[in-house]
Amino acid sequence: MIDAELQLAVENLHARYCHALDEDRLEDWPKFFTEDGRYRIATAENEARGLPLPVLYADSRAMLRDRVASLRHANIYEPQSYRHMVSATIITRAEGSAVKSTSNFLVVRIMQSGETMLFASGRYRDRIVLAPEPLYEERVVVCDSRRFDTLLAIPL
Amino acid sequence: MIDAELQLAVENLHARYCHALDEDRLEDWPKFFTEDGRYRIATAENEARGLPLPVLYADSRAMLRDRVASLRHANIYEPQSYRHMVSATIITRAEGSAVKSTSNFLVVRIMQSGETMLFASGRYRDRIVLAPEPLYEERVVVCDSRRFDTLLAIPL
Amino acid sequence: MIDAELQLAVENLHARYCHALDEDRLEDWPKFFTEDGRYRIATAENEARGLPLPVLYADSRAMLRDRVASLRHANIYEPQSYRHMVSATIITRAEGSAVKSTSNFLVVRIMQSGETMLFASGRYRDRIVLAPEPLYEERVVVCDSRRFDTLLAIPL
Repeated sequence: MIDAELQLAVENLHARYCHALDEDRLEDWPKFFTEDGRYRIATAENEARGLPLPVLYADSRAMLRDRVASLRHANIYEPQSYRHMVSATIITRAEGSAVKSTSNFLVVRIMQSGETMLFASGRYRDRIVLAPEPLYEERVVVCDSRRFDTLLAIPL
Repeated sequence: MIDAELQLAVENLHARYCHALDEDRLEDWPKFFTEDGRYRIATAENEARGLPLPVLYADSRAMLRDRVASLRHANIYEPQSYRHMVSATIITRAEGSAVKSTSNFLVVRIMQSGETMLFASGRYRDRIVLAPEPLYEERVVVCDSRRFDTLLAIPL
Repeated sequence: MIDAELQLAVENLHARYCHALDEDRLEDWPKFFTEDGRYRIATAENEARGLPLPVLYADSRAMLRDRVASLRHANIYEPQSYRHMVSATIITRAEGSAVKSTSNFLVVRIMQSGETMLFASGRYRDRIVLAPEPLYEERVVVCDSRRFDTLLAIPL
């Protein structure tokens, strides 16, 4: 696999992830992770201080599915929609067939009223397995802001 | 054509489109479409409900040129400028030499006063022909917000 | 070097540049330029009028290092952090092994309070040498807004 193909494969995974969330296909969200994939939302401040107190944590696809079920049940996020932008993806090789990927992201929230606002910005720090298909083994969402909306229960 | 080259060709088309609009080269805008290219701005809400009531519609390069002429004549959009960001482009093959492309976009508006604001976000749903050069056969701009500024007469 | 590899090399340079700034690794910033690399922040308005009055100017790596030293000394930028998004990168060949690159950018600023705001948008107009490694020979940051925060002393 040449570098351009690797970059393409990883960026394609990121892109499909964004569209799944933005189209409210939450049930597809766990499918982007390996069976024992880890997902974590943290703040840059806590990461810098070495405080591993994630806003949200899951360490398997099953936990992610539970999370989606809770969200669907609570139904608190309905009136808004979100749009994810990803940029500046840097890929480095890890051991085996895994790679590490770092990207910047920006999420805007669109209220029912039509108002659009900046919702979150930060960095995705990912560990990705490529075979048999690209999947997140770990996705850490490092948010720039320390302030979290209670609605941050939604996946980023 | 390998996948990386295809991705590059499509993203390059999107990029040149953005720069043409952001540099106010509106006269170049129709040239990104095939002679009978279709362009449509819609809201996510109307798309989801199957209501084909576009905010803006054109089904040929000639109509797009008329649109530009109207805009230049009305001259209502002058004091602002815009900046387009495109992300998360996913490409799938369609029949023949055409491809389908889905991207996220974010547009900010910069007022004469210097103030910058979120203007629009959403998805580009494109059908693109690759030969003899990449051109939009159809570009559907699905805006997240239901609220449209009267200035949305400008191309997105 | 095929086109896809060239695009990858240039976008990787842009991406590493963004991450260095967003992670506050300012000391790495001059290393993205050639020894006599030029850096300039300008406004779209001044560029359009041919007024070469940059907000910030440097014409060597040494000057960029001085700039960083001043910023570290003044320490005025600490309470905020920034997130850079880059999009729509178009590359054209220049003479020799150099290339020209044009991209759109958007920078958000995250205040200590957690508030996130649009900080700057505009275009990067770059001249890049590829060998022995990709470096900026010139980076012109053309900001859309005419209004500059006094904090714009930070690199963009």
